[in-house]
Amino acid sequence: MDQLVERFLKGDRRALARVVTRVENQTDEGREYLRALFPHGGRAHTIGVTGGAGSGKSTLVGALAAEYRRRGKRVGIVAVDPSSPFTYGAILGDRIRMQDLALDEGVFMRSMASRGAIGGLAPTIDDVVAVLDAFGFDFILIETVGAGQDEVEIAGTALTTVLVNNPGTGDDIQALKAGIIEIADVLVVNKADHPGADVLVSQLQALLSLAPAGSRRPPIIKTTAVKGEGMEALAEAIDAHRQELESSGQLEEQRAIDARHQVLGIARAILLERIRVSTSDEELDALVRRVAARDLDPHSAAEALVASVGG
Amino acid sequence: MDQLVERFLKGDRRALARVVTRVENQTDEGREYLRALFPHGGRAHTIGVTGGAGSGKSTLVGALAAEYRRRGKRVGIVAVDPSSPFTYGAILGDRIRMQDLALDEGVFMRSMASRGAIGGLAPTIDDVVAVLDAFGFDFILIETVGAGQDEVEIAGTALTTVLVNNPGTGDDIQALKAGIIEIADVLVVNKADHPGADVLVSQLQALLSLAPAGSRRPPIIKTTAVKGEGMEALAEAIDAHRQELESSGQLEEQRAIDARHQVLGIARAILLERIRVSTSDEELDALVRRVAARDLDPHSAAEALVASVGG
Repeated sequence: MDQLVERFLKGDRRALARVVTRVENQTDEGREYLRALFPHGGRAHTIGVTGGAGSGKSTLVGALAAEYRRRGKRVGIVAVDPSSPFTYGAILGDRIRMQDLALDEGVFMRSMASRGAIGGLAPTIDDVVAVLDAFGFDFILIETVGAGQDEVEIAGTALTTVLVNNPGTGDDIQALKAGIIEIADVLVVNKADHPGADVLVSQLQALLSLAPAGSRRPPIIKTTAVKGEGMEALAEAIDAHRQELESSGQLEEQRAIDARHQVLGIARAILLERIRVSTSDEELDALVRRVAARDLDPHSAAEALVASVGG
Repeated sequence: MDQLVERFLKGDRRALARVVTRVENQTDEGREYLRALFPHGGRAHTIGVTGGAGSGKSTLVGALAAEYRRRGKRVGIVAVDPSSPFTYGAILGDRIRMQDLALDEGVFMRSMASRGAIGGLAPTIDDVVAVLDAFGFDFILIETVGAGQDEVEIAGTALTTVLVNNPGTGDDIQALKAGIIEIADVLVVNKADHPGADVLVSQLQALLSLAPAGSRRPPIIKTTAVKGEGMEALAEAIDAHRQELESSGQLEEQRAIDARHQVLGIARAILLERIRVSTSDEELDALVRRVAARDLDPHSAAEALVASVGG
């Protein structure tokens, strides 16, 4: 293990891939690696990219990564979407030379299935991001599936959250309804060549103008990711957000909040895992059915669950 | 204890008040009462009433309760808002004879401080509702504070969720942004005599028209709660929602989902409580600070927390 850590810290990409796999599999060995590597991170700018299905966020992640490469930066990509093209080891949209990214030593990609952890992201995403951070990537792009709670949870993981909006499908309004605009640091209107793009920009501006006085108004950036257009402006908006965090002192505060959130989240996961290990689905279903039938009160049912953990 | 339960089941209001207090205090004795009484419930129509500050939801709850009394129904009221006028044992708005409600044997009111449980409602709200249900109230109105996550959690507790919108303040749009429109079964535009009321109704209609085809469109009811106007239409919309749930078979399904949510929620609360009891705030802060400083990885910190529980 010491040898693999040494190779990792020297920048060996094969060592990186092996460590990521072990961390992702949540083995004890993986956690040992994490323990050893965690102190080496803390410098990367983590960027969550979220948006509805079909918003083009995979293509946008690829195009943004290409922009960072042009700037001489190293980029890690974590895709948390089983339907992401990253999952298949190939990225669509050859116009922006995605294949080049895949061969680029300065880029590392990993796609993870969303494990359906109740209440958001699988805990291992934070862990994989921590490993990429320790490896020395300047930017880590985290692409999340645009449905359910993931968008809200990602805000805890990433320093900057980019919300990708898609004109003309009504998805944009769905996104607003889901409240995720509140967690966006940068708004993107992708497919800027679509006839509805300017309408969507106006709608977003109108919505932002209703925010309480003094609250931050995220910038709106128009992009056409499939052609690589708008990436410079997007990269600059993301940099500006980090500078805002740093100059206001919020960066340290944010990191402390994230750490608390993460530690309590893992503790809860460990405890819930103990319930799962000690209770079968059938036992849980039977308990829940008895409660629904008013044959058992919920506290007694919960105590039975917890008692099965050995409490 | 058997004696108090007996008096409770005979409809003694003083026994009810004593049981509610014990359940609310989360004592072992309170849980014994809950265990004994839980099987007697399951018939009440629980109604969550939520909305922004100043939306007039306390007045609306009072006016709706008065409407149910006119219909000969018995009503329990639980206010989960420290700033609710119910908290002070008196309700504003004498035009609808709130004082009469307070003296009415067919009405029981209890206000509870929101205990700041992470992720939503304090678990005891479900318990107090279960006690009122066992007592035989036909309708139980649950007023929740209109900020944060409470609105989303209330949907698990109540069969019908009423979202109170307030014209002219921008609060309406805030509510939409927070995504709570998705959990509303009935939309109310209160202060219908306000010049902005019709604009708000149009905005809501426009928003609802964007919902995916086939999804339920909640009715929009105009009320002026302070004058008691619109309460008949509101009561009918609430009844219609319950009938929809029953005829579609969703009522039983919803109860099973609620029971699962509640049991797992209590189990999680028991486990997190064990962490809290065994770890001081200072210890937790110290752990979190070490993680933020990259001196300790989050898994080791979480394991230290869990180990303190005796795991």
